[in-house]
Parts: sequence; structure tokens; C-alpha cells
Amino acid sequence: MSFDPASLTYDANGLIPVIAQDVGSDEVLMLAWMNAEAVARTLATRRVTYWSRSRQAFWVKGETSGHIQHLVELRIDCDRDCLLARVRQQGPACHTNRRSCFYTAIQNGDEVEILHPLA
Amino acid sequence: MSFDPASLTYDANGLIPVIAQDVGSDEVLMLAWMNAEAVARTLATRRVTYWSRSRQAFWVKGETSGHIQHLVELRIDCDRDCLLARVRQQGPACHTNRRSCFYTAIQNGDEVEILHPLA
Repeated sequence: MSFDPASLTYDANGLIPVIAQDVGSDEVLMLAWMNAEAVARTLATRRVTYWSRSRQAFWVKGETSGHIQHLVELRIDCDRDCLLARVRQQGPACHTNRRSCFYTAIQNGDEVEILHPLA
Repeated sequence: MSFDPASLTYDANGLIPVIAQDVGSDEVLMLAWMNAEAVARTLATRRVTYWSRSRQAFWVKGETSGHIQHLVELRIDCDRDCLLARVRQQGPACHTNRRSCFYTAIQNGDEVEILHPLA
């Protein structure tokens, strides 16, 4: 079946959540959002392209920082309302310079930093 | 710092997206939603408890199917608007009886089933 971005289920703002996972480490790197055009651009260019909700603009991940996400495979969930982008991440994924945005864990009721910024 | 579910950033519906990842395989299993009370219940019981948007009710994952998610660690992202639940998944995570909800991949422009239902 040929894939059409319009066949996905978008929310009231026309967006779908996208989980980015590193193909080497299987680490979950971040969650961001795409609209249908961002999905199409990501597939066409193989450079993961989100829709920035704060800037209301396309956001080619790493365009400014150089921390590019090369798309290896895009996966769709059973409800077609979430995507999993399997990527090769260049440099840290997080704007705090950490490998992953999920660098805080709740341990014994306290917040603990489990990933430090890269040198 | 002691963790307070109210310190997270919820959307207009009072919900936060939660990625479930298996601690054994590192496979991304699913994405679902929690409200602040679901976060608190998940931490208190160690049984992952979502908020079902379709049923508008708490959803203790596996309560009906037996396909429980035991919480190993809950992680918070940099913007505090997404959670990563590291879980031990009992049985398949997907209601289609597949290990993961992300069982469709886009390959060469076509949709391909990459995971089959468990026997």
C-alpha cells in the first residue's frame, strides 16, 4: 500500500506526535510534532523535519546546531496517530547538549539527573 | 528535589504524552496519555496507568487483558511536557496482539507490516 501522509490521524492543530529513537543505541531521544507536510518533507529528504509549535514554522532538526537526525525508518502505530522515527542522531539530540531529552528520572520520589551534558 | 506531578506541563486537556519503552529489549511499545492523577497512581502502584481519551477514564494497562506494564523508571524530558516510562511489559503491548503498536513501517514509499501478532 503506497503511503499517503494524509492517511494519518492528526490532532485539532493538524499535528501528530513523533518519537525519535536512535538506531544504534535504541535510546529514546525526544518527542516532537509534525504536520502532514513535515511528514512528507522528512520522507523526501531523509532529514527529520518537525513542526515547531513555539515558532509555528518547519524545524529541520539540526539545521542551526548541526545536530541532524538522519531518518532510517519511519513507523506508524496501530491508531495511526503517532509516529516512531528511527534515526541516526548526529551529536546530542537535546538543546541542553545531552544525548537525550529524557535526562531526569524519578527515583524514590526524587528527581535525579541521569545524563550530563556532553563536553 | 521531591517530585510533584503538578510540576509537569500538561496540554489544554490536562494531559501529557507518555512513551512506553521495554527495559529488556529497549523496544518502543506505545504512546498514550496521562493526567496528573494518572502520573501519581502510576508512581504509587508501579502499574502503568493512563488516562483513556476515548473512554474518559483511568486505564490501568493490562487490567482487562493481563498485559500489564510494570513501571521500572519514569523519566521526564527537558521541557517537562513528555514522559518516558521504562517498563517490564507482560505479553503484547498492542491491542492487536503485537509486541509493539509500531508494527507498520514505511519502506520505499510503501507501508509494510514488520511485526506479526503473537500466536
